[in-house]
Formats: sequence, C-alpha cells, structure tokens
Amino acid sequence: MSDVVGDRLTIDAGLRARARTVIPGGLYGHQNVALLPRGYPQFMSRGLGAHVWDVDGNEYVDLMCSYGPVLLGHRHPRVDEAAARQAALGDCQNGPSPLVVELAEAMTATVAHGDWAIFSKNGTDATTQCVTIARAATGKRKILVAAGAYHGAAPWCTPGPSGVVPEDRAHLIEYRFNDVASVEAAADAAADDLAGIMVSPIRHDIGVDLELPDPVFASGLRALCDRTGAVLILDDVRCGLRLHHGSSWEPLGVAPDLSAWSKAIANGYALGAVLGRDSLAGAARSIFTTGSFWFAAVSMAASLATLEVLRAEDTVGRTVKTGALLRHGLADQAAGRGLDVRLSGPVQMPFMTFAGDHDFALADVFARSAILGGVYLHPRHNWFVSGAMDEADVDRVLQVTDAAFDDVVAAAS
Amino acid sequence: MSDVVGDRLTIDAGLRARARTVIPGGLYGHQNVALLPRGYPQFMSRGLGAHVWDVDGNEYVDLMCSYGPVLLGHRHPRVDEAAARQAALGDCQNGPSPLVVELAEAMTATVAHGDWAIFSKNGTDATTQCVTIARAATGKRKILVAAGAYHGAAPWCTPGPSGVVPEDRAHLIEYRFNDVASVEAAADAAADDLAGIMVSPIRHDIGVDLELPDPVFASGLRALCDRTGAVLILDDVRCGLRLHHGSSWEPLGVAPDLSAWSKAIANGYALGAVLGRDSLAGAARSIFTTGSFWFAAVSMAASLATLEVLRAEDTVGRTVKTGALLRHGLADQAAGRGLDVRLSGPVQMPFMTFAGDHDFALADVFARSAILGGVYLHPRHNWFVSGAMDEADVDRVLQVTDAAFDDVVAAAS
Repeated sequence: MSDVVGDRLTIDAGLRARARTVIPGGLYGHQNVALLPRGYPQFMSRGLGAHVWDVDGNEYVDLMCSYGPVLLGHRHPRVDEAAARQAALGDCQNGPSPLVVELAEAMTATVAHGDWAIFSKNGTDATTQCVTIARAATGKRKILVAAGAYHGAAPWCTPGPSGVVPEDRAHLIEYRFNDVASVEAAADAAADDLAGIMVSPIRHDIGVDLELPDPVFASGLRALCDRTGAVLILDDVRCGLRLHHGSSWEPLGVAPDLSAWSKAIANGYALGAVLGRDSLAGAARSIFTTGSFWFAAVSMAASLATLEVLRAEDTVGRTVKTGALLRHGLADQAAGRGLDVRLSGPVQMPFMTFAGDHDFALADVFARSAILGGVYLHPRHNWFVSGAMDEADVDRVLQVTDAAFDDVVAAAS
Repeated sequence: MSDVVGDRLTIDAGLRARARTVIPGGLYGHQNVALLPRGYPQFMSRGLGAHVWDVDGNEYVDLMCSYGPVLLGHRHPRVDEAAARQAALGDCQNGPSPLVVELAEAMTATVAHGDWAIFSKNGTDATTQCVTIARAATGKRKILVAAGAYHGAAPWCTPGPSGVVPEDRAHLIEYRFNDVASVEAAADAAADDLAGIMVSPIRHDIGVDLELPDPVFASGLRALCDRTGAVLILDDVRCGLRLHHGSSWEPLGVAPDLSAWSKAIANGYALGAVLGRDSLAGAARSIFTTGSFWFAAVSMAASLATLEVLRAEDTVGRTVKTGALLRHGLADQAAGRGLDVRLSGPVQMPFMTFAGDHDFALADVFARSAILGGVYLHPRHNWFVSGAMDEADVDRVLQVTDAAFDDVVAAAS
C-alpha cells in the first residue's frame, strides 16, 4: 500500500521536505498530519461544496470541514460574493465598517441570550475574553472547567504543557462534564472566589466519544450560577450554528450569561465573537481587548451572509438529515460485520470509535482506508457534515467506508 | 464648529446610536474613537492608496494606515489580486496550502535571524508564542519587559487591568527602555529563573514621544542573553517591514533569537508570525499553539505579494523620503509660529507632541483641526506613512496642518 501512497502524494511529499527546513516539525498545531495514518495529504489545493482536493489533485468528500469553520460548504457563492463586495471597498481600516453594527444586530437577534456582541479573530480570543469579563464582572478569580475540555491554545487553556507555567492555570478548578455533583464540589472549592463556569455545549474532547449534555446538568449549572453569582460561559466555538441557529443550549432552555463563538460563524473567514447579557455589558466595556484585524470588514460581510444562508437553506435541518443517513449507514455496515462501534455526537458532528480500540489502531486502519478511498475524516477528532453535502455524497462516503470496514475486519483478525 | 461636525458625520452618528445598543460602549479596543476629539468618524467606508473615506463620504489623507497594517497603501492591486486568486481556490481548508511553505521560505530569506517561521492571526498570538517558546526552551519562567511597552491585549500583557489577575503577570519583571543598567537589575532580580527579554525595536508607548534604540542598549541586551542563556525576543509587530526589509534591529547589527510579527506583513490581511533561530526550533515544535484560521491561505498569498512589492517599489526608501518631507514641513510650520513641538520616531512612523501639553489639550486641538480638514492622524498614537503616499499627499497634509497649527496658537493664547 505504501506505493499507492507514494504515487498519489508526490507533490505533497516534496512540500513536506521543504516545510521541514523552515517550519518546526514541518507544521504546527491541529492541522499537522504527523500523527495521522500514512496516506493523509498535508497540503490542500482547493475546495468546492462538500468536496476538497489535495495538492496532488486527489479529490475527497469532506467530512472535516476545515475542522469546523466550513458550515455551508466550501466557497459558498453567497458568502464569497458578499466578502468580495466588501473587499472591493476595504477590509482593515482606521475604524470598522457599518457591518460591525449590522453583524452585532444580527447575532444578538439570532442568539437568545445575546444582548451585545464583540468580535475578534480566534476562538481562543473569545474564550479568553469570556474569562476576563467574568473576572471583571465578579471581582473574583476562580473559573471552573471540565476536565479534558478544549477551550483554546493560549497558555491558560492549551492542552500541551510545554512553556506553560503553573500560574497560567492557578485559578482553574476542574469538574466532570455531565456531573452536577462534581461541579458543586468544584464550586465549593472555589468558595467565595468563584468568577465563572465554562462549559462546552456537548462534550467533544479529543479522542473520546462525544457526549450530549444531560438537561439536568445544564440546568444545574444555570441554577448554581444563579445562586452564587458566577458567570455561566458557554464555549460554543466548535458547535455554534451547527446544532441550532442560536446558542447550542437554547433547545434545552438553558441560557448562559456569556458565550464564545468562532469557527463556523463566517463559513471559513477568520472571526471570533463573544455574546453576552446586558448585565455584563459594563464588564465587557471595562476590559481592554483588541487586535489589529478585529475590525476588518470582509469576515463580517461573510458572517452576515452565512447567517442569511443558514436560514434560507435550513442548514441545520439539512445536515441533521444527511448526518442521520451517514450514521445509519455506518451503523449498518459495522453491524453487518459484527463490529462493535460507537457512533456518538449529534449526527451533524459525528464521531466513531471501535470498542476496545484504546490505541486507535483500528480507527487508524479505518481512516487510512477512507482517505485512500477519497473520504476525508479523522480517527481521533469528531467530524463535521456541511450543508453542501447531499445524498449522493453520503452514498459515496458509504461506498468507501464499506471497504474501510473490511480493512478493519482484516486488521482485527 | 459643532454644526460642522454634526453635518459631516450624520450617517456616522446614526450608526453610533445603533452600535451603543448592541456593542458595549459602542465599540471596543483601539479603534474606539470615544477618547478622540469630537469630529473623528467612528465608521469607515473605503480606502484606496493613501486615501480613506468615512461612511459620510468625507475623504482623508491617511496617516494611520489602519494603525499599522496598511504598509503599501490601501487595496494595493498586486496584493489584492494575489489574495483573490487564492480565494478562488480556497482559504481555510483541512490543511494549509503550499503557500505556507513559500511564505516561511520567503520570511526566513528576508529576516536574517529567521531560520524557521510559524503563522497565526494576531500580534498578541505571536508575542504570546514567543513567551511560551522562551519558557519551553529554557525551562525558566521570568520574562523581562520594558515598563509601559505594549505587547498585545491578552491578560498577561494588556494595558487595561480589568479582569486581569496578579498571576497573569507573576513572572514579568520590568526594565526601562534604552537603560542597560535597568535590564541588568531586572535580570539580577530574575536570578537563575530568567527565560527571556522582550523588547520593541523602538520605544512606541502610547502617549509619549517615540524613542529610537541606543545601539549600546540593543547590543547590551544581546550580550546579556548570550551570557545568561535567556532568549532575546524582538516584538516587531508594529515596526516590522516598515523600518527595514528584515528585522528592525538588523541595521544595528543585533539579531534576536525570536521575533514576533503581524500588522504590515500582509498589507492589512490578518496574519501573525514568529520567526526564530534553529536553536529554538525544538522548543517551538514542543508547544501546542493553533487556531482555526491559522492555516488559511488567502492572507499568506497577500503576505507573499507584500514582500515582493516591498522590494519592487522600495517601500522603505519611499516612506523615508515622504516621511522626511512631512517631518520637515511640520517642523517648519511649528517653528514659524514659535511653537515648541517634539517630532519623534522614525520619519515613516512619526509622532508629534507639544511641549508641556501633558493633558493632550493642544494635541487634541491639532488633531481635530486635521480631521476636519481631511487628514487622518492621531493625537496620542504614532502615525504611519504608507508607500502609496506621494509628494502631493504630503503637500495636502501640510496645507491642513498649517491651519491646524493656527488653531493650536489660538487655543494656547
């Protein structure tokens, strides 16, 4: 199989060799494929709808959506046209364009708890702002976070400990997702110094099955914050706009005080946002947070178009439908072979693991077979279904996964 | 004069009223004009070359360059064409495009001390990465920073204390810019826990005259780092590519170990970068730092074009020439009226204060007169001269500042 890999990724291999001389380790961060099975391309050429092409011209049905930002499909024409129209005027200027007002109006109209909005560039910008606003609002320091949760890659939250000092996390206290008692215990440990509780709408930690929120957990956090005055922070960076047109906990009837957004809100254009309740507007105003490109208009134009298309095309409804087709297809294929798989997460943010596959050996076999067959998915990170994916794409994925499950059976025996 | 302001900013006033209901304080960060004299527009419509227009259609010669990102002029055709070409393929994908390699090659070829590069979105991303890499490389914690210096707006460095906890800055020790003895004292205070020294190429603190580096100071920092093993970090976010085609201290013959870049490196497209020496590649590889949009290709295409145009148009040489014309013109106008002004900074990053004007009352009169006359400059922050500015633009600026100095004389008497 190595020859197949070698032939199909010739240009990629050349670029990797060059990259190793000018980029530490060949690449940094979550898009480094060094830990993925052999066969994954490192460098991508283009995308269109639900399809992406690597630099060697290999085409894939895309189940990663750029790790979340691509919601409507790659290069959605309405989004790109809106961005190009704004780019012809200006992007990063001496002040924001009127779009910052329009977007704040649109986001606060879309998100029930959002009375105001501020914008940035990274999800980490947004989660960091939420922590800072919670501390400014309460005058307290402790922030509760779920063990294993990902809230960004700054020193206070990055999962990699290198270069981080203990003081960066001096005021974090961990609880367990979906375990109200553990949150109560963490709050007790914070005593009268509790500033806020940060939580993801679903548990989407790397390498473990996704877990939907227990409504009792969500409402328990809300009640705890109401009782203590702590700020409830929903980290909707990864899920935001994928599960619901507003905040991801609106279907549960639980409103946070603050929420962090990024990834999908501009369909791939770089944008972060914090939304919050009126009671926190003063605290938000009091913190000094800024960036050279935070007022740039093009990504705001893209975001406004994304919000429009989302409703016009019923993206959530569509991805629930195609996600369900995909899940049922995968479940049937696994069951037909007697393979014990766990399909977790919302169907539009699916993930699959194999029972007992603690070292991801089977997941890697499956993923490698998929990538060579023309389906881009990930063995350790949840996948994403875009609004551009149709039934024919799901059929194509299932053809490929049918063979991938055969490879898993062969590897497991 | 209030009627003039009211008439010329009607649309702006309407947008501000809307903004106040959905954005805390009407706007956040450094582009909030709340602290600028009345007459400044909050919302901008477009830019072209050295000229910008507010939402009411008022035109200005631009001396702020979007607070630094616009180096070659607004909407430089070669940069925008390169960006549009890449946008037609893809921006934020499952992996970087080949441009990440080309850009790392181009940056390391341009910057003498740069053996490798990593890319991000904000200047704060880059300075934070430098601190993290220095700590990872040395296993030590203390970072020396100049008192009053701006290195970004995350909790560890933001100038606003709201929401910041003491632990965020537990391992920062201050020295005074251009004062080697103060750096030695700070290093002594760090004792055997010194990880790095961060320094801006020039002193460009808000509200004070800019200060060029004393070569003895620069080489003293280098010697101290060589002696102690501390990492010398040059924060070239604001100055990078404006003073020199490589690192801003290359003309002094002083090479840092790490450097942080952003603002001008993609002529207004959102991009940050860290460059470093080979000896720090392992530490850079060891830290986990990433962002959803850090691999996006469009801003990298813009950066590659910016580097080409910079050389092709000799942007540094041109801005030195037009900057000198501007400085001499301002100095002559002030001297002719017996006004004691201090013109500081490199001529392409000029700043002007009035002697004894501790509350910026005269600077505000001057700035207000300038903005109403059609010149966009800032009373407390250094200005920027773009490569698009020509002698006719300088003449136009000097016509306006001639009247502005008259207003200062009237206000001072």
